[in-house]
Amino acid sequence: MTASTRYDDIADLLARRIAQGTYTVGDRLPSIRELCREQGISVTTAQSAYARLEEMGLAAARPRSGHYVLPRPRPRDLPTVSRPAQRPLEVAQWDQVLAMVGSAPSADQPRRLGAGTPALDAATLKPLGRLLSGLHRDPDPRDLGYDSLAGHPPLRQQVARLATTSGCLLHPDDVVITTGCQEALAIALRMLAAPGDVVAVDSPSFYGAMQILEAHGLKVMEIPTDPRRGISLEALELALDQWPIRAIQVTPTCNNPLGYTMPESRKRELVKLARRYDVAIIEDDIYGDLAFESPRPKAIKAFDDEGRVLLCSGVSKSLMPGLRVGWIAPGRYRDRALHEKYVSTGASATQPQRAVAAFIEKGHYQRHLREIARRYQRQRDIMTDWVGESFPDGTRISQPRGGFLLWVELPGPIDTPRLNERLAAERLHVAPGPMFSASGKYRHCLRLNYAERPTASLEAAIRRVGELAGEMREYQDSEATLP
Amino acid sequence: MTASTRYDDIADLLARRIAQGTYTVGDRLPSIRELCREQGISVTTAQSAYARLEEMGLAAARPRSGHYVLPRPRPRDLPTVSRPAQRPLEVAQWDQVLAMVGSAPSADQPRRLGAGTPALDAATLKPLGRLLSGLHRDPDPRDLGYDSLAGHPPLRQQVARLATTSGCLLHPDDVVITTGCQEALAIALRMLAAPGDVVAVDSPSFYGAMQILEAHGLKVMEIPTDPRRGISLEALELALDQWPIRAIQVTPTCNNPLGYTMPESRKRELVKLARRYDVAIIEDDIYGDLAFESPRPKAIKAFDDEGRVLLCSGVSKSLMPGLRVGWIAPGRYRDRALHEKYVSTGASATQPQRAVAAFIEKGHYQRHLREIARRYQRQRDIMTDWVGESFPDGTRISQPRGGFLLWVELPGPIDTPRLNERLAAERLHVAPGPMFSASGKYRHCLRLNYAERPTASLEAAIRRVGELAGEMREYQDSEATLP
Repeated sequence: MTASTRYDDIADLLARRIAQGTYTVGDRLPSIRELCREQGISVTTAQSAYARLEEMGLAAARPRSGHYVLPRPRPRDLPTVSRPAQRPLEVAQWDQVLAMVGSAPSADQPRRLGAGTPALDAATLKPLGRLLSGLHRDPDPRDLGYDSLAGHPPLRQQVARLATTSGCLLHPDDVVITTGCQEALAIALRMLAAPGDVVAVDSPSFYGAMQILEAHGLKVMEIPTDPRRGISLEALELALDQWPIRAIQVTPTCNNPLGYTMPESRKRELVKLARRYDVAIIEDDIYGDLAFESPRPKAIKAFDDEGRVLLCSGVSKSLMPGLRVGWIAPGRYRDRALHEKYVSTGASATQPQRAVAAFIEKGHYQRHLREIARRYQRQRDIMTDWVGESFPDGTRISQPRGGFLLWVELPGPIDTPRLNERLAAERLHVAPGPMFSASGKYRHCLRLNYAERPTASLEAAIRRVGELAGEMREYQDSEATLP
Repeated sequence: MTASTRYDDIADLLARRIAQGTYTVGDRLPSIRELCREQGISVTTAQSAYARLEEMGLAAARPRSGHYVLPRPRPRDLPTVSRPAQRPLEVAQWDQVLAMVGSAPSADQPRRLGAGTPALDAATLKPLGRLLSGLHRDPDPRDLGYDSLAGHPPLRQQVARLATTSGCLLHPDDVVITTGCQEALAIALRMLAAPGDVVAVDSPSFYGAMQILEAHGLKVMEIPTDPRRGISLEALELALDQWPIRAIQVTPTCNNPLGYTMPESRKRELVKLARRYDVAIIEDDIYGDLAFESPRPKAIKAFDDEGRVLLCSGVSKSLMPGLRVGWIAPGRYRDRALHEKYVSTGASATQPQRAVAAFIEKGHYQRHLREIARRYQRQRDIMTDWVGESFPDGTRISQPRGGFLLWVELPGPIDTPRLNERLAAERLHVAPGPMFSASGKYRHCLRLNYAERPTASLEAAIRRVGELAGEMREYQDSEATLP
């Protein structure tokens, strides 16, 4: 079995003590020396445990003074560890996905409170508009001919440089540009698995990837997933023993929908496990650059020296989805990835690639990330308060470490697809939990988006969702107690 | 058996008489009345036969005078009717395709004389550059959010209107926008056929579609194809009787690489045949708008009232490939096409869609087509002369009815992949014939592009290809006669 590391355990122990009130806000936590003595650990382990506690947003170091418990807006219960089905399944739920992604937001459509759209009104995005238009002031006809199949070379160079921030060493030729991260995931899955094969995924999991699995005739093995530490390596190992799993697909950094970032130690362990069972890892890093911590967490690919990890990412979440600029760093599968790219779309639109390359190269990208992550973190806290105050007692809420998505677990038997039916009358819509599961689990869960600015109108909408969920609970409770 | 229609036969008869010199340039052809008497046919049939002869570019009507034989630059022999393998095959040849599409044209690369790139220097394309840049002068953030999954609604509207020129009645909701025509073809094939299934194709056939077939694990049944009338309906019917064919894929208008347009009567027959055997037709119409005749020929889809034809097209050949704006009109398969589109790339880049929609709406598209078709037709004649003059005796040349691609069939055993090896030393490259066949046939054929302006440098390059081909022939001849 894969063991979690010692410092993770110590960090968890300290977190529990904080949660229990052993230490409260502003208290000084045990010094490194005290902790070493108490737990019989090395200074390095104690330091790592505190680093982890800081990552968890529970403590901060003050220079030459020690670690102190941070104020937390209101501690909320985290979602429970998921317990998906114990066998490979076929994916369904296309109707729910289509309802959310089928049409552009418009006046005719319910307000989508759970969509995956980032903030598009940031001032730091403005240079991108200028770059997109500037490219055609004095056009060179070759600009819109067939570009390199692997993608616009200057963009591949920028992507390779960017990868150093997630600890990856990539050459521009290790990168294949795609039409959004969705094409990157589709390429990875199509080349690694044939119809009927089994792919292991974290659960809940991004619905778009689940639909690719379905369309390609793949079976999905959903692995229990911890809302703070990610996919259970223990359960994954059991599954690898039991089933002919061809690939592992995870979103380990700023996970969608749960918001966690897997600790580095567990990312390393996952790579080791994949090596032991000789399977590939498809790493969806689309939200990774939106981590609230700086520098951003390392990607799983950072720990991969065999080319076994296929990193899939893009700018749909960090910049704008409509650019459709994504990429895959397919490691040892590069030649096949290039073929899959060719037969999928030939190439991706040139102009957005040129604009994004220039945007990164001129430093606008990192500037935007800094601004937008601060904003998302603030809005996360506000949205968490609204949900905490207006949703039924017993509601559990994720604590995202980045990105702009909140996962909400409602108490008891409240059914979110049915909740959406009631919300439709008020022209509201949330992302219902079953979209995120092959087997339609998570019927009592929903996803919310906090990228939008926290206006009074948004607050009223969120509170209304909470109220209706509360009403459904009472109704269902009274139904349950009928003779 | 499917019979060709009577007027096609009459037109062929007249064409043969012209080729044989029975009628020479400027001669008046038999009047309608004379032809009716001679052949025992109706006036309508005789009129249709002359319409066909005009389509073939062999005759022109003078008002109140009759039909006259048109001057032809130099009559060249057409390529022979193809005779591909008589059984379903797996596709290979990726290395040849990659050599041509892998990298953008650059100073490091041989000059690609057979690429599929259109003319990008046309003055009539200039408004497109202005539109692409103008979109971002005063950007609306929603412009680059997630658009409708089926594609930008104003573009779908323009595509539906455009379809009337090819005789199709489409509603904007019948159209799904794709990332280039390649994604349209991939979507069609993935949803119609499962790995191991057989798809019938015209032959030679577009290498991009062949590679999709390969990647999806499909088998290809190559059907003999006439360089003037297209896929042999007779051979196709035999194949449909013998093999479990799931779909028929053809490029019936301004075919790539042969340049023919199937006569309307045969397009109708093909739809009837597909109905009788209950298979779908994937119609690649990417070159259709570049027909030299006006109005452009009808699409096969124009004759389909069951939603059995999936029309795939886009602007990569008529405008610019780098826009990656394509579409599919998937008929009765619309819901599945939408799902395949979602799992393939999520959506296509928004900005090029907006620019193309505006370009069509403002009339720039039709204006550009008129100009560019005239230019391509002129350049076709020039290129045909160069090839006719410099290639070995016995070379056969296609007579494209539209588009910008010439198919050249070399005499005897000249091997075009080997020719390319010799051309590489001179930094030249042609599209070798085997790319266009699942079984690697057409080794003595090659494709040339005449979209480029006919400069002295281009002429020298083409003549050099002809010279080298001639040398290879002599070498191979002398090899063959060695004791």
